[in-house]
Parts: sequence; structure tokens; C-alpha cells
Amino acid sequence: LADLLPAMDGDTKTMTFLQEVVDILLAYIVESFDRETKVVDFHYPNELLQMNNWELQDEPATLDDILISCRATLKYAIKTAHPRYFNQLSTGLDMVGLAADWLTSTANTNMFTYEVAPVFVLLEYVTLKKMREIIGWSDGRGDGIFSPGGAISNMYAMLLARFKMFPEVKEKGMSSVPRLAAFTSEHSHFSIKKGAAALGIGTESVICIKADESGKLIPADLERRILEGFVPFFVSATAGTTVYGAFDPLIAISDICKKYNVWMHVDGAWGGSLLMSRRHRWKLDGVERANSVTWNPHKMMSVPLQCSALLVREEGLMQNCNQMHACYLFQQDKHYDLSYDTGDKALQCGRHVDIFKLWLMWRAKGTIGFEAQIDKCLELSEYLYNKIKDREGYEMVAPVIKARMMEYGTTMVSYQPQGDKVNFFRMVISNPAATFEDIDFLIEEIERLGQDL
Amino acid sequence: LADLLPAMDGDTKTMTFLQEVVDILLAYIVESFDRETKVVDFHYPNELLQMNNWELQDEPATLDDILISCRATLKYAIKTAHPRYFNQLSTGLDMVGLAADWLTSTANTNMFTYEVAPVFVLLEYVTLKKMREIIGWSDGRGDGIFSPGGAISNMYAMLLARFKMFPEVKEKGMSSVPRLAAFTSEHSHFSIKKGAAALGIGTESVICIKADESGKLIPADLERRILEGFVPFFVSATAGTTVYGAFDPLIAISDICKKYNVWMHVDGAWGGSLLMSRRHRWKLDGVERANSVTWNPHKMMSVPLQCSALLVREEGLMQNCNQMHACYLFQQDKHYDLSYDTGDKALQCGRHVDIFKLWLMWRAKGTIGFEAQIDKCLELSEYLYNKIKDREGYEMVAPVIKARMMEYGTTMVSYQPQGDKVNFFRMVISNPAATFEDIDFLIEEIERLGQDL
Repeated sequence: LADLLPAMDGDTKTMTFLQEVVDILLAYIVESFDRETKVVDFHYPNELLQMNNWELQDEPATLDDILISCRATLKYAIKTAHPRYFNQLSTGLDMVGLAADWLTSTANTNMFTYEVAPVFVLLEYVTLKKMREIIGWSDGRGDGIFSPGGAISNMYAMLLARFKMFPEVKEKGMSSVPRLAAFTSEHSHFSIKKGAAALGIGTESVICIKADESGKLIPADLERRILEGFVPFFVSATAGTTVYGAFDPLIAISDICKKYNVWMHVDGAWGGSLLMSRRHRWKLDGVERANSVTWNPHKMMSVPLQCSALLVREEGLMQNCNQMHACYLFQQDKHYDLSYDTGDKALQCGRHVDIFKLWLMWRAKGTIGFEAQIDKCLELSEYLYNKIKDREGYEMVAPVIKARMMEYGTTMVSYQPQGDKVNFFRMVISNPAATFEDIDFLIEEIERLGQDL
Repeated sequence: LADLLPAMDGDTKTMTFLQEVVDILLAYIVESFDRETKVVDFHYPNELLQMNNWELQDEPATLDDILISCRATLKYAIKTAHPRYFNQLSTGLDMVGLAADWLTSTANTNMFTYEVAPVFVLLEYVTLKKMREIIGWSDGRGDGIFSPGGAISNMYAMLLARFKMFPEVKEKGMSSVPRLAAFTSEHSHFSIKKGAAALGIGTESVICIKADESGKLIPADLERRILEGFVPFFVSATAGTTVYGAFDPLIAISDICKKYNVWMHVDGAWGGSLLMSRRHRWKLDGVERANSVTWNPHKMMSVPLQCSALLVREEGLMQNCNQMHACYLFQQDKHYDLSYDTGDKALQCGRHVDIFKLWLMWRAKGTIGFEAQIDKCLELSEYLYNKIKDREGYEMVAPVIKARMMEYGTTMVSYQPQGDKVNFFRMVISNPAATFEDIDFLIEEIERLGQDL
């Protein structure tokens, strides 16, 4: 029983099984890109639980059963590669990125030391340096790490800012530190507050700064709030807000941060990728003055999930902030250059290899390929904006259209309220497979689904 | 240029490319399981940087170049599936787990809502429930989440313990809380201190409890230290310590936790998998009294990296502790049962799909297959212990043998000091491909490499 593929040595049965799975996946990919296919075959949770036997058993299944499970899983999966899937900030499926992720799974290793991931550690080194050059830090100097998502990257930034100002917090905790204040726009991502709650700073110490009509932080309000009394230690400017896609004015914010000696973080989880575009990177002018930058290639650059980078201007700070010198892992008497053991920079011990997908895609497209991909997404957004700006009926948008959209399965778009605005569709264009025709389809489909309301 | 596979629709070129990558991967797998192959083709970082062109370019590469990059990456990768790779707690490569990970990459979605990951969210629900049943919580009730590694799972546990005792800490931070104390054995994993540093508790508030000669926490010392004055809020017992593999006495520890009303966490990142074995699970007797348990199927159960679960006895606590009600993601007016939107239980926003590998392997092996695999690893350990206990020369172990081992590439074992003991090899057996003969080989090889020292 334990012999059911616990390991193998190139036997035909195992190889045939893997190839059969690949055939299922290739067919799924072809289907996902076909506009005639539904984006989702939607079922409610209780229905879906009963539509298949998902329970875990004591007894082993046959390999044929396993293939059936794979097919069933894909049947009810959301086709995130579909050209009409616009639901999240991460959409689309890049074939080189996918191939790289398959290789990563096959290599099955861990980023914490050079010893067990020599190539991947070097590729992370090369790629982070390139990203820092693009940010504009001289010679690409600085530090960084790939972390499991933008929320964790933002939390790392806050952790570093606190440690930079009060290094004793590592040993003594918050009882050694005065009452702190962090600042971010009212439109910023909720991870800033989550981070503050986790780090023992508390959500009440996150001061929400007013945004203007277009969703940009108002610098004068930032300065006013900084002067209110608590010790300001962290400003998180957003480059590409979650709902409006607004870019905070980084130069004005950096002037304020410099004046009051506050750590400036740029949450570019969504908008950081615009740095790859010569046409659009002006929206992040001033980013080179930041102390840290979150930039998620798994969003607008369509790298498979997850791929999030935190870039840090000061070298050595991450290591000092997080290291615990575990002597079973980061032995100081190793026979190679220890600066390649990255594990003590992170809170994670084991760390998934997220770099290879990005690196291989970058090789395949070149910097100019990524630039073209991003420019195309922004062109589609402009097209959508122009098409609906004078169209009637776009105030009235209700969740019921969303429910119908899921049930019909023809397309997927997210929705939410913001401030005093009621529920509206948040149209995200980061899917490299989308075309002008898909945008036209979306508009028609929303109107069709809302027709009899 | 942007057309270099930015998306596809089943065209032959793309399909051929993917199949070519798969062929490279299948050949690598066959090679990895071959004992004649080296575990590692080792090169020092500066050498490896120069052995290939790893730099990122402005211009795109051809698909042939991409295949060459894939081959080069694998050439210098560590063969973690090799039957003689014993270097980490996670070793081996399971073919069903690998197939599941390839499917996960192809589905390319996110665990935060049922909306975008209906099947995976249900499979996580089913699997976590099963794991809680195995722990011994009645009807599998409770909560849990898969997180990016044991260090993060442990940090979540500490975060929950603090929130349970002082819910106001979420808003008001540590300034609202008395001086806390957490307790863990001197042999415990470094992530407990990392977590305390990050959460603003401070490493000095982590009290290290003495362990006996076999590496088990001494309960009497725990009680003595709890009485020292600060507010005790968290005890982390270890089930399977990192270096010795020792199991702390959970029943005695749970009695103390109950007496002083302290959250009991069990860090079973390594040893939690013994719960699957009827023969060995007695080592975790008392685990059902814990408030939370970390259990990493990516270690002794050989699920591909990463797959770490945090199980929590109290329902609803994770949600209350971490939720921020992001209204663009966790809309309260959705048309399905919102309890399946798991995102607000976590600090992460986006969360990688780590569940499918475990679920599919569980289906393939059945509970009894996992049990057999774990029993076999423990049998091999016993065999190794018996073989070397009376053998001469095993005190003298130096890093230089490790360096030679890497350069020869024949096998890989980790080493470290512990307390007053100098460097020694830490032999980890979790590789399902290893046999009695591989253990024999290892012993001979260590002696051969150390011969002329």
C-alpha cells in the first residue's frame, strides 16, 4: 500500500501517470483561453460539497481515481486565464511562467540557504538587484526578499521601520517604545492595519489620511496629522490603490517624511509594475526616495501566484531586524560565502521558491516585453474609460448583477462600495489575454444581465 | 515582442514548448532517483554566477534559449528527491504530490475567497477538519488555516493567544497590555523568538525552559518560571524538536497550562505527522488538550513545499483576531455562504493554494498509506541508531567532512552544535525513497570522507 508511488525510479507506470496529468492540464489550458468556454461553472458551497466525493479515506485510491479527482477539481475551478476574467488584480496565465512553476515544483526546495537552493538564491539576488536599479537606487544597492504576498511585504516594511528607529524593540518589545503613529491614505490596502495589529502597534495607531476625489493622499493632511503628537515612524504611500488605482504624490510625501525623519514606504503591490514602462513610470516619480517598496510581479506582470517583492534601501537592516542565528541552519563555519544564506532576513524559516517564474518570464520577454504588456493593459483601461464615461445607466450597479454574472459564468468582475459611494464594479485590467473586443463584450454583458432590474 | 507567449489559445508552438519543458522535468526526475547520480553538482557562489549567463536582459530570448535556461537551472539544483538526500526535514519527491502542484500552478488562483477558489477552499475545509479529528478534538470542530511555513503558523498561534487574553491589543497595541511572558524549551525552534520580536512582545519575554538530556522540556522548570511574575500567556511545547527530534511531555505541560490558565500551543511542525501512525502517536499524547497545533505535512509526510497547517481549537477566534473587513474582497452582501471566505482569518491577503498537494496525496495513499510511510522512516532511524551506537570514531565530526560531502556530491546531511556539544551531524530521515542500503551507504561515506582527517 505504501508503494503507491511513494518514490520512483523512472518506472513506466509513474511516467505514464505524470504524462496523463500533463495531458489533462494542457487540455484545460486550451479550454481556458477559449472565449466560448464559461469562466466559471458556479455552484454554491453546499451544492459543490455534494457534487463529488471530496472526503479523505483510510484506503488508497487507484491512479485512475486520482486522474478523475484532477478532472473534477478543474471542472469547478475558476478559469483565471480566461480573457474575460477581470475579477482580481492577478489574472491571466503566462505559459513561460507556468513552465517555470512546474520546474519549481519539481526542484522542490527551500530558499533559506544557498546550500539547498544555489541557483534560485543567485537568481533572487540578480533579480532583486535589477528591480532596485529600476526603482532608481544607485547601482541597484540595497536589500530585499520575496515574501508570500503584498500584505506580508508591507508588514515587513513596518517591522523594519520600527526596528530602525527603536532597535531595542526586538529584545524588549513595545514596552520600551513610546506611543507610535503610522500614516497611510484612507484608500490604502487593509494590510497596513493588519500589520499594525499583529506587530503590537494597534490599529488605532494607524492614522488614515484624507484622499482627494481621485483617491490620492492629500499631503497637507498628512503633515497636519504628523504634528498631532505621537511618535511618527512610518508613512505608507500607495502606488496604485486597490479600488481606484490611484497613485499617491510620492515627491510631496517624501519631502514630509524627510522633514520629520519618518520611514517612507511605497506600497506598489499593484502599481509598482508601472516602473517597467517608460511611458507610465512618471506616476511613481519620487519612489527612489522611499526607504522600502512593495512590488508584486504576480499582479500587473502576470507572474503566477505568488510573487511579491519587498525592496529595502538600507543594506543589512533586514538581517539585523529578523535574525536569530539558528545554528542548525545558518552555521557560521560553512565553507561558502554566508551572505547568500537569506533565511535570517525573513520571519519565515522555510520559504517557497517564488523567484524562478519571474526570472524565466523576464528572460523570455525581456524588459521591453514586460513594458509592452503593461502598456497594453493601460491602453485597454483608457479604452474602457472612454467607452463608458458618457454611457447612461452606469450609476445603478447592484450585487445582483454580480450574482447573475457568476451563475451565467460568462465573465467575472469584482465590486465594492467606497466611502459614500454605493456598490460599483471595480474593473481591473491586468489580464494579458484580454483584447478590445473583450472590453466591448464586458460592457454589453453587464447591461444584458442588468436589463430587467 | 509582447507576443512571446503572453497568452495562447492552444497553438501548436505553445503546446510543443510546454511538452518540451515536461520532457526535461521527467528526465530530471528519473535522474534524481538514480543512486548513481550525484545529489549535488556543487559550486561556490562566485563560480556559479560565472558559469552561466543569469543576467536579465532588455531583449526577449527565444523559446530555445528558455529551454536551455531550464536545463542549466536543473543542472546545478540540489536533487532533493535523491534517496541519499537527508539534509533537511523536508526531503523526497512524491509523484502524486508533484502532479497536484502542477495542477495548482495551472489553476493559478488565490485562497482568500470561495468566489475565486471554490474547490480549493472546500478541500481545505475538508482536510483541516480531518486533521482536527486526528488530533482528537470532538467531531473535528475548531478552526485552522494553511500558512506559508511553520514559523508563520507558530507566530499565528502566539498572536491568537495574546488576542484571546487581551482582545483590546488589536486596536490599542501592546501599550494596553501588561508585561507578558511566553515559555518554550531551550531546544525549541527559533521561530518562537522571531514571532515574539515581530509581535512587539520582545525576545526577552520568551523564557527558555530547561530540557533534559534527551531534549525534552522539564515541566517542573516550566512551573517555576511561570511563577516568576510577568503575565504568562503562551506556552509552546515542541513535538519533534529540530535537532534532537525530542517530544516534550504534553500531558504534564497541559496540566500546568490549565492550572495557570495559559494558552497551550504544540509546535508539531516536524513531529505532528506521527499522529498518522497508530504505533507512534503516543509520543503526542495530550495534544488534544492544546489550544493550537502546528503540523507541517511538507516535512515527514513528504508533501511538496510548502504545506503547513495551524489548527486551532476555538472557532471564530482567528477571524476576530485578524479581520479588517476589506469591503472590496469580503463583501457582506455576497450571494453565497460567507463562512467559506477564509481570507480575513489570515495576515496574508493573497494566499497560495497549498492544500491540493496534501489532499490529492491523501486520496492516493489513504490514511493507512501515510501511516506506512511514517512507520518506515522511523524504522530506518532505529536501524541507523543501532548501527552507529557502538561504532567508534563518531565523536569527531567536523564541518570539513560536510564541505567534502558537498564537493563530492554523493549525499547530503546537515550538521550543527547544540548547547555544550560541538558540531555533529543531524541525521534526518523523512525521505520516502531511502532504504536500509542508503543508510549503510551514508555511514560508509561519512567514514570515507573523514578518513585522512
